[in-house]
Amino acid sequence: MTVHQFQPERYYNTIGAHQPVLTLNSGDAVVTSTVDARGWGADGESAAERGNPMTGPFYVEGAMPGDTLEVIFESITSNREWGWTSNRLAPNVVDPEFAAQLPPSDIVRWTVDVRQGIAFPEQRAGKLANLQLPLRPFFGCFGVAPAKGQSISTATSGEYGGNMDYRGFTAGVRIYFPVFTEGALFHLGDGHALQGDGEIAGTGVEISMDVRFRVQLIKGKTIGWPRGQTDTHVFCVGNARPLDQALQHATTEMLALLREDYGLTVTEASLLLGQAVQYEVANVFNPAYSVVCKLPKSVIEML
Amino acid sequence: MTVHQFQPERYYNTIGAHQPVLTLNSGDAVVTSTVDARGWGADGESAAERGNPMTGPFYVEGAMPGDTLEVIFESITSNREWGWTSNRLAPNVVDPEFAAQLPPSDIVRWTVDVRQGIAFPEQRAGKLANLQLPLRPFFGCFGVAPAKGQSISTATSGEYGGNMDYRGFTAGVRIYFPVFTEGALFHLGDGHALQGDGEIAGTGVEISMDVRFRVQLIKGKTIGWPRGQTDTHVFCVGNARPLDQALQHATTEMLALLREDYGLTVTEASLLLGQAVQYEVANVFNPAYSVVCKLPKSVIEML
Amino acid sequence: MTVHQFQPERYYNTIGAHQPVLTLNSGDAVVTSTVDARGWGADGESAAERGNPMTGPFYVEGAMPGDTLEVIFESITSNREWGWTSNRLAPNVVDPEFAAQLPPSDIVRWTVDVRQGIAFPEQRAGKLANLQLPLRPFFGCFGVAPAKGQSISTATSGEYGGNMDYRGFTAGVRIYFPVFTEGALFHLGDGHALQGDGEIAGTGVEISMDVRFRVQLIKGKTIGWPRGQTDTHVFCVGNARPLDQALQHATTEMLALLREDYGLTVTEASLLLGQAVQYEVANVFNPAYSVVCKLPKSVIEML
Amino acid sequence: MTVHQFQPERYYNTIGAHQPVLTLNSGDAVVTSTVDARGWGADGESAAERGNPMTGPFYVEGAMPGDTLEVIFESITSNREWGWTSNRLAPNVVDPEFAAQLPPSDIVRWTVDVRQGIAFPEQRAGKLANLQLPLRPFFGCFGVAPAKGQSISTATSGEYGGNMDYRGFTAGVRIYFPVFTEGALFHLGDGHALQGDGEIAGTGVEISMDVRFRVQLIKGKTIGWPRGQTDTHVFCVGNARPLDQALQHATTEMLALLREDYGLTVTEASLLLGQAVQYEVANVFNPAYSVVCKLPKSVIEML
Repeated sequence: MTVHQFQPERYYNTIGAHQPVLTLNSGDAVVTSTVDARGWGADGESAAERGNPMTGPFYVEGAMPGDTLEVIFESITSNREWGWTSNRLAPNVVDPEFAAQLPPSDIVRWTVDVRQGIAFPEQRAGKLANLQLPLRPFFGCFGVAPAKGQSISTATSGEYGGNMDYRGFTAGVRIYFPVFTEGALFHLGDGHALQGDGEIAGTGVEISMDVRFRVQLIKGKTIGWPRGQTDTHVFCVGNARPLDQALQHATTEMLALLREDYGLTVTEASLLLGQAVQYEVANVFNPAYSVVCKLPKSVIEML
Repeated sequence: MTVHQFQPERYYNTIGAHQPVLTLNSGDAVVTSTVDARGWGADGESAAERGNPMTGPFYVEGAMPGDTLEVIFESITSNREWGWTSNRLAPNVVDPEFAAQLPPSDIVRWTVDVRQGIAFPEQRAGKLANLQLPLRPFFGCFGVAPAKGQSISTATSGEYGGNMDYRGFTAGVRIYFPVFTEGALFHLGDGHALQGDGEIAGTGVEISMDVRFRVQLIKGKTIGWPRGQTDTHVFCVGNARPLDQALQHATTEMLALLREDYGLTVTEASLLLGQAVQYEVANVFNPAYSVVCKLPKSVIEML
Repeated sequence: MTVHQFQPERYYNTIGAHQPVLTLNSGDAVVTSTVDARGWGADGESAAERGNPMTGPFYVEGAMPGDTLEVIFESITSNREWGWTSNRLAPNVVDPEFAAQLPPSDIVRWTVDVRQGIAFPEQRAGKLANLQLPLRPFFGCFGVAPAKGQSISTATSGEYGGNMDYRGFTAGVRIYFPVFTEGALFHLGDGHALQGDGEIAGTGVEISMDVRFRVQLIKGKTIGWPRGQTDTHVFCVGNARPLDQALQHATTEMLALLREDYGLTVTEASLLLGQAVQYEVANVFNPAYSVVCKLPKSVIEML
Repeated sequence: MTVHQFQPERYYNTIGAHQPVLTLNSGDAVVTSTVDARGWGADGESAAERGNPMTGPFYVEGAMPGDTLEVIFESITSNREWGWTSNRLAPNVVDPEFAAQLPPSDIVRWTVDVRQGIAFPEQRAGKLANLQLPLRPFFGCFGVAPAKGQSISTATSGEYGGNMDYRGFTAGVRIYFPVFTEGALFHLGDGHALQGDGEIAGTGVEISMDVRFRVQLIKGKTIGWPRGQTDTHVFCVGNARPLDQALQHATTEMLALLREDYGLTVTEASLLLGQAVQYEVANVFNPAYSVVCKLPKSVIEML
C-alpha cells in the first residue's frame, strides 16, 4: 500500500486510452491536484485547455475488462481562494418561453474561504449581499476509460463515469466503476467547491483542488454503471438524456445490485424499491444528464 | 373559523367544476375521510369507482380566478389496517430492453400498523420477511378545479394540482394552489401510507384515510403552479412529461417566487439556485410526471 | 342519409360532454362552418373566445363506448381571404441556447387566395416577397368527447383526438375515433389553410372554414387511438409528450391494427414495420405532441 | 480527379483519429466495399468485429477544422444476395406496458435480389409469404472524425455524422459534414439494402456493399451539423436523444442555413419554416436518435 505523490504535467480533455501517468497497485493511494474546468490551476494561471481537463490517467495493475474499480476520495480540498460560476440558469432548465427572455450569461467570481468552510459571490451587493453557502467539495468529472478504445469528451458521461457533476461525490464516498480496459485508466478533474442539485447554472463553484484518493480492484465483479456507497446509502448512477432515460439506467442498475448482491427476485426488488427508493437529480445540463438511484442502508439491513 | 364534519356520499374520478359538497370560509377546517385509489373505504368495501375517487369538491367563499388557495393537512391517518401496492416496477422506469423481461404484475396487500407506525407486505416470506418501513402518510391526488371549466381525470395532474403522488405532501406542510374557478373547488383523495420517490411501482401503499385540513384564501396573489413550504424548505411543483419538462416548470415557478416574493433579479436568482437548489422526483409514473424544486429556508433567510 | 345544414351559434373551448347541437344518424352529412383559432369568423369579426373554439358537438345516434366513429371531411374550404400565423418559431423547437436569442413574436396576416389555391404573407417585402405556398386546408382540432366525462381544453389532444394539428387531415381522408361516450359527441374547428410539419411556429395559416363532413358508425369495433386512411396509406396517430412517447403510442396502435385487422403476429408485424413503416411529425408545439405512423396500402395489399 | 480502387484490410468500430488508409484530393472518387453491421463481408464470412465496422478513414488533402466536406455516394450496391434483420420491434418504440409483452428477438435472413430490385424474408410463410419490398440501398453509419481527438463508438452519432441510419442517404444525395480534424478522416459502413423510417426494429436489411463515392472540399465554409441535398430538397440532420432534441438541432441548423446561405432574417426563416418545413424520423433506436429537417427546393427557389 503505497502513497504516490503525483504532480500533473499535462491534462486530457477526453477520457480514453491515453498513456498512463502512473501505475498503481490495488490499495495504493495517490496525492495529486487538479485544475479547474477552464484549466486554471492553484495559482490562477492557465495550465490546460478549457473543457474539464483531466489529471491522469492512472493505470491499476491487474485491472481487466469485467472487473470493478473502487475509488475512495480520502480528501478533496480547494487549493485556491476563489472559484467561478455562471450567472445565468441554463436555458434548458426553464420553460422554453421563459428561456427566450433570459439575460446574457457571464462568469462571476466567488470567494472560497476554506478555513471558514464557506463561499459567496465576490461582489457583495444586491439581494445576495449576505449570502454564504457551506463548502461541499467534490469532483464533477472522473471515471475510467470507456469500452472499445473510445476517447470521449469530458463534457459528457456514460457507463464509464465522466462528467456526472453529482454533488454527492464528496470525500469519504466509495465509488465503483466497471472496468472496460486493461489497467482501468482512471482520470479525474473538474473540482467544485459546492453546487446545487442538477448543476442548473451549468457550473458549480469551479475550482482547482488538492486530492488524495485510493483505488481498490475488485476482481471478477462486473457492474453496468457507476455505483457507490456512503455511510447511510448505497446508490447507482445513470447517465443519459433525457432525465427519464438516466433514471431508467440508474433504476435498472439498482435492480441488478439487489438481485446480484442481495439475492432478491425482481418482484421482491420491486416491492422494496417502490416504497423505499430515493432519487437525486445529479446534473440536468451536460450532453448526458445524470440521475442517482439510492437506498438507505437501514432498509438494506432488513434484507 | 368553523370545523366542519363531512361524511362523503359520492366521489368524483375527475377534478373539475362539480357541484360543491360544502362551502367553507377562509380559515375553516374540515374533518372528513377519503377512500383509496380503487374506491375501497375504511371497512374495505367498495364505495366508489376505481381510479383515484375524490372527496369533495369544497367551495371556498370568495375565491376567484387569480387568487391563491392555501391548504394545510393538519392530520392524515390511515383508517384501516391494510393497504396494497403493485408488486412490479412500472415498465417505463427501467431500461426498455429490461422491461421486455419483467414478470406480470399483481396487487399485494400490506399490513399497516398505525400504532407502531410501520408497514410491511402481508406475506412474510423470502428476502423481505423482515422488512418494515416507517409510515409517512400523505395524499397522492388533490387540487382545485382547472381553468376553462375543464374536468380532468384524476390519473393526471397540471397547474391545478391533481395526481402528483409526491411523498412530501405530509401533514403539516402548507400547500398553495392557483385558483382558476369561483370557489376554487378543492378535491382530495388517493391516500398513501408511505411511498418511495417517483411512485415507481405505480402505487404507494394505497389506503383509505381520515383527514383534517384547513383552507386559507390569499386574495389577489397569483401563482402559476402548486407551491408549498415545510419547516425547512419552500418548494414549487411542476407537472408534465417528460421529467425534463416537469423540472422546467418547477424551476421557472421558483424563479417567479424569488422574483415576486423576495425581489431577486433573474441573475441573482440564477446565482442562488445554481448553487443551492434541490430537486425531488415526486412521480415518474402518471401521465404527467411531477418534479419538486426546493430551497432551504436557511438560505432564503440570507436574502 | 340526410344532409344537415348547421349554423353554429355558440362554440366550446373544451372537448367534452357538452349539450349536443344536432343529432346525426350514421351516414348523415353536415354542412357547417368553423371560426378560426382566435374565434374570428368568415366576416373577420370575433364570434367566440380565443383558443380553438369548436363547432358542435354532434350526437351520433347509437354510438356507444367501445364503438368506432368514422369521419370523412368531404370538403374543407376557407371562407375568407386572409389568415394569420405567428412570425417566430416556437422556442421549444430550437436549441435552448438559441431560444435565448429569439426575437419577440407577433401575429402576421397572410393573403389566402382560394381561387388560385395559394397563400403568402400580406406584407410583400424582404426575402419572402415572392413566396407563395399552395393551399392544403385541414382542421387542426377535432375529435370526440373523452372518457370518464372529462372536458379537456382544445389546446391539447389525446386518445379522443383534439388539437393534433396534423397537416394530413385534409378533405377525402377517412378518420376513425374510439367512442368513449354515448353519442360520441363530435367537435371540430381550428382550420388551417396550410401548415408545415410539426406546426413549429405554433400556428398554421389560421382561418375560418366552410366544411362538409359525413359520419359513419362502426358498431362493436374498438380502437385505442385515432386512425385513418388516405388513397395510399393507412395510419395511426399518437398524442403525448415527448415525441418519443407520441411515436410509441402511434406504433403500438399500428401493431394492434395489423394484428386485429390483418391477423399478423407480433413477429410478422415487426418484420414488416421495421422495413416499411413511415412517420410524420404532426405537431411538436402543443401540450401533447402528435406523431403519425403510416403504412403504404401497396404494402398492406401483399399481406 | 483520380478514381481510387481501395480494398479494405482492417475495419474500425469507432469513428476517430485513426491512421488514414488513403489520401484523397478534393474531387477524387473512391471505389471500395463495406462489410455489414456484424462484420460479415461479400462472401458471408466474418471479416471484422461486430458493431458497425468502418471502411476507412480516408484523409482529404487540405481539409482543416472549420471547413466542410461534401460526400456524394455515386453508387451503392449490395454485393451479396442476402441480408438480415431483427424480427422484433425495439422495446423503446412501443408503449412500455406493451414492451413487457414482446416476444424474444432473433435475427432473420432476407433474400436480396439486386437484379429485380426487391427483398423479402427468406422464410416464405404466414402472412408475409408474398411480401416483397423495393431495394433502397444506403449507408447507416458514416462521417468524419469528431472534435477534440475523440474516438466514438459506431453505435452512436453526433455533429460529425456516425450511426444516423437515415434511409434518405441513398446514391445521388450530396451530404455535407463539418470538418473537425486535419484531413477530415471520412469513415463509412453499415450498409442497408432498405429500411423503414426510424430503424424501429433496430436494423435495416443489413448487408455488405460495393460503393463508389466522391469527396469535395469546401474551404472556409463552416457548418454545425450534417447537411445534404437531393434533387428536390435541402436538409439538415440533428442527432441526439430524445427525438425532441434531435429535432431542435436539425431545426436550428436549418435556421443557420437559411440565414447564412440565403440571407433570411430569423423572422423570415420562421414564417417560411412554420408553413413549409418537413421532418423525417431517421432513427429512433440508436443511443442518439436522428431527425431530418427538410425544405423543398421549389420553395427555396422563391427566396
